[in-house]
Amino acid sequence: MITKTLQSRTEVAIRFSEVDSLRIVWHGNYIKYFEDGRHDFGKTYGLSYHNIYDKGYVAPLVKVNCDYKKPLFYGDTAIVETTFIDSPAAKLIFDYKIYNKASQELVTTGQTIQVFLHLDQRLSLNIPDFFAEWKNQWLYAT
Amino acid sequence: MITKTLQSRTEVAIRFSEVDSLRIVWHGNYIKYFEDGRHDFGKTYGLSYHNIYDKGYVAPLVKVNCDYKKPLFYGDTAIVETTFIDSPAAKLIFDYKIYNKASQELVTTGQTIQVFLHLDQRLSLNIPDFFAEWKNQWLYAT
Amino acid sequence: MITKTLQSRTEVAIRFSEVDSLRIVWHGNYIKYFEDGRHDFGKTYGLSYHNIYDKGYVAPLVKVNCDYKKPLFYGDTAIVETTFIDSPAAKLIFDYKIYNKASQELVTTGQTIQVFLHLDQRLSLNIPDFFAEWKNQWLYAT
Amino acid sequence: MITKTLQSRTEVAIRFSEVDSLRIVWHGNYIKYFEDGRHDFGKTYGLSYHNIYDKGYVAPLVKVNCDYKKPLFYGDTAIVETTFIDSPAAKLIFDYKIYNKASQELVTTGQTIQVFLHLDQRLSLNIPDFFAEWKNQWLYAT
Repeated sequence: MITKTLQSRTEVAIRFSEVDSLRIVWHGNYIKYFEDGRHDFGKTYGLSYHNIYDKGYVAPLVKVNCDYKKPLFYGDTAIVETTFIDSPAAKLIFDYKIYNKASQELVTTGQTIQVFLHLDQRLSLNIPDFFAEWKNQWLYAT
Repeated sequence: MITKTLQSRTEVAIRFSEVDSLRIVWHGNYIKYFEDGRHDFGKTYGLSYHNIYDKGYVAPLVKVNCDYKKPLFYGDTAIVETTFIDSPAAKLIFDYKIYNKASQELVTTGQTIQVFLHLDQRLSLNIPDFFAEWKNQWLYAT
Repeated sequence: MITKTLQSRTEVAIRFSEVDSLRIVWHGNYIKYFEDGRHDFGKTYGLSYHNIYDKGYVAPLVKVNCDYKKPLFYGDTAIVETTFIDSPAAKLIFDYKIYNKASQELVTTGQTIQVFLHLDQRLSLNIPDFFAEWKNQWLYAT
Repeated sequence: MITKTLQSRTEVAIRFSEVDSLRIVWHGNYIKYFEDGRHDFGKTYGLSYHNIYDKGYVAPLVKVNCDYKKPLFYGDTAIVETTFIDSPAAKLIFDYKIYNKASQELVTTGQTIQVFLHLDQRLSLNIPDFFAEWKNQWLYAT
């Protein structure tokens, strides 16, 4: 089965308040940029926080990795490239590549893993039906 | 009627991530320190977020003022002095004075005003009973 | 002397991480939106952080006021309207009006006041020359 | 050569502003708690940001991992256990375990890796002398 590459590209303007005393973006703020990418991916492909909630689930993070390669500065614009990673597990996995828009340099890479909880907080051990359907629609469509 | 001064003093350690590229605390972070003071006041005097919620109310802010007099730096410890300001209105008003613990200098002053909403989001036009009782217990007690 | 109205309008997308447990934007985050407006104003009118720094000054805040009228929610887009307020003092004053883009409702108003420091941290008691020239160019031009 | 376990334990009070609309700590805030742990470790063992800077280095992060096991809530107190991980590389590596103070449950684990830059931004390929001495003093001492 051939799967498509599902990907979004999101512009993020770096705020003054996101920069630390070394005049570079404080490392923890990249987690926000990943979320900006995920938000945009969700809007593009119908897999937003609100879409998931309407189906009776929330999808909290269970893991985040972030590798810092180059700094970003106040006034820079970042491009967050968010790629859906298919998995047989009941998990939602995204890879991120953050680029400096002006230089086109890769500045950060990362990954997040989310699980599905029913609204009563029980972990969904199986892939939720809506997510299986979503994969059929977007990922495996011919 | 004589009212007591109700006041708490709260230590806050300044985080690296709270300092900006000028190496001073970014101005928006003082709003967190005010909230630290309010949190501590609430725990001390039985007027916490959870106490208010248990009585059927939330108390969102409708106003904040902040005057910056001296900077704070990474590694500093701030003292937030939170003072209850009595008012006949259905409002919760606090004054704040933030000191640098080491130098004892006054670095910031401010004020917040909160209103009471019922849990269904309706504004409480009158002082909630629990708050009137709280005032009787703490503020006017002989 | 007739002065022009100098104003910018800036779109801000509300982040998931900016919303609190009441599902509304946490009040302290509006200070970031004011800064987004100020940043955009500075880019539009040549009065950015970097412009000011290049002239030998920094302009820290000495006062912020914020009045909350309506909540904003995750997924909303805010419009920050930033207006330059002229003053004979050596101060930089901006008024802010934040609107909900979808409903056009006014959700927040506020004001910030900044002073000018030389790069050695001394307060500028007089209006810096570059700022007087900036006013002549933008504010009083016929 | 026997190495000692160098470890600190740091209390962190969860702020209202750190909790998201699911009423749990927003995942990106754990990066701050790791930094709180690192800050405390540095103060305890003489390896703070300021100690490193005084030796002519800064130590930016190149990697962070975070695994979320249980949520934390507003009002909780977290215990951040920060453990120094020895390595032959010119890197500063810490493992973190975050516990809920009340329940003693392990809520989060993580790791950060930092490199050493000279103050002119050049990467230090070798272990800085001061760091080799620090290891001799603290880690390998008999």
